[in-house]
Amino acid sequence: MSSSQPLRGVVPPVCTPLDTSGEVDTASLARHVEHLVSGGVHGLFALGSSSEVAFLTDRQRAVALETVVEAVAGRVPVLAGAIDTTTPRVLAHAEAARAAGADALVVTAPFYARTHPVEIARHFRTVRSRVDLPLYAYDIPVSVHSKLSVALVRELAADGTLAGLKDSSGDEGGLRRLIVGLGGRHGRADGPAPSFSVLTGSELTVDAALLAGADGVVPGLGNVDPAGYVRLYDAVRGGDLDRAVKEQERLVELFGMVDAGPEDEMGRNSSAIGAFKHALRLLGVFAHGTTAAPQIQLSDASIALVEERLRGAGLLPVR
Amino acid sequence: MSSSQPLRGVVPPVCTPLDTSGEVDTASLARHVEHLVSGGVHGLFALGSSSEVAFLTDRQRAVALETVVEAVAGRVPVLAGAIDTTTPRVLAHAEAARAAGADALVVTAPFYARTHPVEIARHFRTVRSRVDLPLYAYDIPVSVHSKLSVALVRELAADGTLAGLKDSSGDEGGLRRLIVGLGGRHGRADGPAPSFSVLTGSELTVDAALLAGADGVVPGLGNVDPAGYVRLYDAVRGGDLDRAVKEQERLVELFGMVDAGPEDEMGRNSSAIGAFKHALRLLGVFAHGTTAAPQIQLSDASIALVEERLRGAGLLPVR
Amino acid sequence: MSSSQPLRGVVPPVCTPLDTSGEVDTASLARHVEHLVSGGVHGLFALGSSSEVAFLTDRQRAVALETVVEAVAGRVPVLAGAIDTTTPRVLAHAEAARAAGADALVVTAPFYARTHPVEIARHFRTVRSRVDLPLYAYDIPVSVHSKLSVALVRELAADGTLAGLKDSSGDEGGLRRLIVGLGGRHGRADGPAPSFSVLTGSELTVDAALLAGADGVVPGLGNVDPAGYVRLYDAVRGGDLDRAVKEQERLVELFGMVDAGPEDEMGRNSSAIGAFKHALRLLGVFAHGTTAAPQIQLSDASIALVEERLRGAGLLPVR
Amino acid sequence: MSSSQPLRGVVPPVCTPLDTSGEVDTASLARHVEHLVSGGVHGLFALGSSSEVAFLTDRQRAVALETVVEAVAGRVPVLAGAIDTTTPRVLAHAEAARAAGADALVVTAPFYARTHPVEIARHFRTVRSRVDLPLYAYDIPVSVHSKLSVALVRELAADGTLAGLKDSSGDEGGLRRLIVGLGGRHGRADGPAPSFSVLTGSELTVDAALLAGADGVVPGLGNVDPAGYVRLYDAVRGGDLDRAVKEQERLVELFGMVDAGPEDEMGRNSSAIGAFKHALRLLGVFAHGTTAAPQIQLSDASIALVEERLRGAGLLPVR
Repeated sequence: MSSSQPLRGVVPPVCTPLDTSGEVDTASLARHVEHLVSGGVHGLFALGSSSEVAFLTDRQRAVALETVVEAVAGRVPVLAGAIDTTTPRVLAHAEAARAAGADALVVTAPFYARTHPVEIARHFRTVRSRVDLPLYAYDIPVSVHSKLSVALVRELAADGTLAGLKDSSGDEGGLRRLIVGLGGRHGRADGPAPSFSVLTGSELTVDAALLAGADGVVPGLGNVDPAGYVRLYDAVRGGDLDRAVKEQERLVELFGMVDAGPEDEMGRNSSAIGAFKHALRLLGVFAHGTTAAPQIQLSDASIALVEERLRGAGLLPVR
Repeated sequence: MSSSQPLRGVVPPVCTPLDTSGEVDTASLARHVEHLVSGGVHGLFALGSSSEVAFLTDRQRAVALETVVEAVAGRVPVLAGAIDTTTPRVLAHAEAARAAGADALVVTAPFYARTHPVEIARHFRTVRSRVDLPLYAYDIPVSVHSKLSVALVRELAADGTLAGLKDSSGDEGGLRRLIVGLGGRHGRADGPAPSFSVLTGSELTVDAALLAGADGVVPGLGNVDPAGYVRLYDAVRGGDLDRAVKEQERLVELFGMVDAGPEDEMGRNSSAIGAFKHALRLLGVFAHGTTAAPQIQLSDASIALVEERLRGAGLLPVR
Repeated sequence: MSSSQPLRGVVPPVCTPLDTSGEVDTASLARHVEHLVSGGVHGLFALGSSSEVAFLTDRQRAVALETVVEAVAGRVPVLAGAIDTTTPRVLAHAEAARAAGADALVVTAPFYARTHPVEIARHFRTVRSRVDLPLYAYDIPVSVHSKLSVALVRELAADGTLAGLKDSSGDEGGLRRLIVGLGGRHGRADGPAPSFSVLTGSELTVDAALLAGADGVVPGLGNVDPAGYVRLYDAVRGGDLDRAVKEQERLVELFGMVDAGPEDEMGRNSSAIGAFKHALRLLGVFAHGTTAAPQIQLSDASIALVEERLRGAGLLPVR
Repeated sequence: MSSSQPLRGVVPPVCTPLDTSGEVDTASLARHVEHLVSGGVHGLFALGSSSEVAFLTDRQRAVALETVVEAVAGRVPVLAGAIDTTTPRVLAHAEAARAAGADALVVTAPFYARTHPVEIARHFRTVRSRVDLPLYAYDIPVSVHSKLSVALVRELAADGTLAGLKDSSGDEGGLRRLIVGLGGRHGRADGPAPSFSVLTGSELTVDAALLAGADGVVPGLGNVDPAGYVRLYDAVRGGDLDRAVKEQERLVELFGMVDAGPEDEMGRNSSAIGAFKHALRLLGVFAHGTTAAPQIQLSDASIALVEERLRGAGLLPVR
């Protein structure tokens, strides 16, 4: 991941399989890395939100990251989330990730404490200066309750603090303004390789984001169907937008599994991550569909809905 | 606008020119309708947020709508916003819009009072049953502080309450789920004409929305450059995505005018609507760039930034 | 309400009785005014949020206000809400309220359109300069989604724009900072009559607000039990805090009626206002408990919960 | 802190002094404990938000807590925050706090990941069952972005999960409903000692909260003026409300220091915590006023405003 080879393509945020006691199931995780890499993905993002990073202890984070790095064995780059409330705590995770062999860091704005944009800029600059790895900003307002402005990202891109952005804000208009400000799709695609990677987390509009000039996608659903996202990516890159839209629509239908758990019984995180994990269990990758405490586990009825989506998308044989 | 001819294309939300005393400048408004219709637009949306509907008295709303209807003279359909806090007040505006010759109504969820989704559904159903005009739901959480769920829109589409949706929520993932639920782009484009029009208000990602299967766009910036949005629309419809992206990128640059007014001196509405109005003045369409009270007016320095964007986008000759 | 006689005491926001067709029930409303005035209240606030002002058409607002003014017949001052999205629309309501005989206006910050604090200040100054009535700012972020800062209120108090504040923000710390900035409880109570009235809408902590130096209270629950709030007010003014706390605690129990309607079936406004209206029906004041469209009506089971609270608070005989 | 001796009184959240390199300044911290205990406080809350817990590494948290426990030497109980995103991570901190000698734990709802109330209940129950210390719920929506409902707190109080609540929500109406539901002020004060402690974090309305029946207060400003809060507490307990209000008003004026740092230059946390720390430096307790990264440090002009407030409140001699 040198600056002359910016990150591009499909980079799933790797779900972390747990055994029934809540510990990291390293055998399932190694199998999952094979599932993803053999699906053709271009990188892996460990210890992100879909990895339940907020639910893993420091020891579990280390086990998960080391397992991913070892299983990948250099075939694709491994980005590692260093997710915590503020700079001093993020630095500790970042150093651990570097030691575990991560190829790049992914860091959010501070959370819990309210911060000013000037402080957010200091946060990213401090992390970049202290840990010698490419740094991706992770814009995820639903979790950290602040939005990285286009102006701030451009400033941190221009001075070399950031190697890229993982945009999970859902603000596609803002992302477009950023891309146009960075030279636009054509300027980026036709000119010298861009030094700044724009990755979208909006897994339902990947065709659109790539059309607009995004470099890649970090799809939670890519855990379940990595090959589908790779086909979608290749279709756009190959100029076959019709095929891309059809693939995206199939994935939108598959994504319906995130609503498997009833809204009045569990949080949206429990439902979505539980669905991905049980889908991977049904696909033979994970041994268990367990999510971490205090999340509610999917019921059999909910799991049946997950299975239905897998069959509908052609990932399991229709009965 | 019969149900066999759903609304498609570019439908700008018509800015309302005011004179320096704050009254509707009907001469400028009639000129503006010509500007838009001659730009090739497929419909007009009067009395929407970009029309400063929230700033116009009932009398001013009537004058504005009647002026638009008369100037259009049936060349394209006129949608009229009936924007107010709750059902009884919306009904009064809706009846006035029908009397003024509107072809369809555009109505938001209730605001000011907190309402439940069941009450929002009753709201739309009551308006539809009382006023005999096609009804578009206007999803604009930034103004009404609630989001219309995909499930609610689908329910109201299925039972014939809604003729369409004007989506200003910025939730492109949700919009994609809605479109796929309605049959997807191919199902909609290849099959019988859809009876439900999906219009996006996300003016910076129109290429993407149309690619995904949206029927049209309601771009505030289309006031300034209607022909640009029509070219963008035609490019996607004609399958020339490269041209569409280039046109969209030009419009993204032009859109930068909305930040002309400093953030620490005025609201974002004052800055954006003031920029559109001064751009129209610089283009010879409006006599004044005045926005309604209590908005702050753009300074000369801000107006210079607007002019710069117009020159950059080729709408004024470069000096 | 001259500036030498600032408003003090209990000023209920008057609920608006509706008949089953949704029209204002003027006979019930006149009865309700007697209920309130005979309960000893010091003023009435018509056309506020608890009056369902956001649900009343302009004609209904006029009928309601005229009925209140006529029934009061000068015994206590009548404040009238002029509630709408922006300055031009508020001015129309304010003029109508003046013509109907209101003694003062109550106005919120603009809503629907996003505004800047500088624009909010212009809004209040414009209303004050155009309509010759004392002006109260109505701070209600839950409805208008912006908060009036202590600094802004102090600025508008100092220059004579505002005669007072009706604080429904729930920010008791901010209210305390305002009161201390205005001279504190002792400075206000011991010195010359203050020219600025601080009224709290926090009906569950009236003892505390009065202790802190607030001049009065605008309790929605005061519709149901005006005499209770007057006793509470008198107890604090008379220095009997023990009695005040006991009265407040009884009213807190009574307030439980606002949860009569199930959260998964109706909005919180429908439940609370429906409870107040059915309580007034059970007390023989209102003919109906109807709330305006699109609100859901309380079920018999919910009404039974309202009745239970009335009995618990001693307002109906225990069976 | 047995269940027959519930926590009552003034329990400041202990600010954590840092040296200029950002490490815990244990000498200043020990001095600060003396400052607080000699001020008459009834307990200490270490590792709370005002302690910059979100900015301290695990090692720094351990150093800070151990220093406080050692310096207190059993004179008053020490509550320790175990603040992290979810149950597994909170458990690690809770175990560390128990090992360091904390007398009770203070835990928020999960954050970063979105959780359902059922999951929040599981979170508290799991922590209580795994770590044998009294557990206080910390309701702080500004940091964790969810509010603990009155119903949830009552449920967890009734089943013995919670020993108390530290309410930093600012929702005084909800707190009153909770207190009344627990028996009200008189029921609590006159009956057997309550088994559930209600502590408010609303430092500007302590007189009101105690009047309403709260058991104590956790005032950030109590770091600067512990004796003032103790006098305020004693005045209410002794029935001298006049003196209590006067003391509270003095503290409200003193609190103005939190705005010392300009809003357009730094976050509100940096300004408030920076003000407290520089005040303690000016009072001779802290060696430095440093706040943790990435916070902005107060300028000399801001520090002068802090000093002015100290003089105004009589904590430094007036020059």
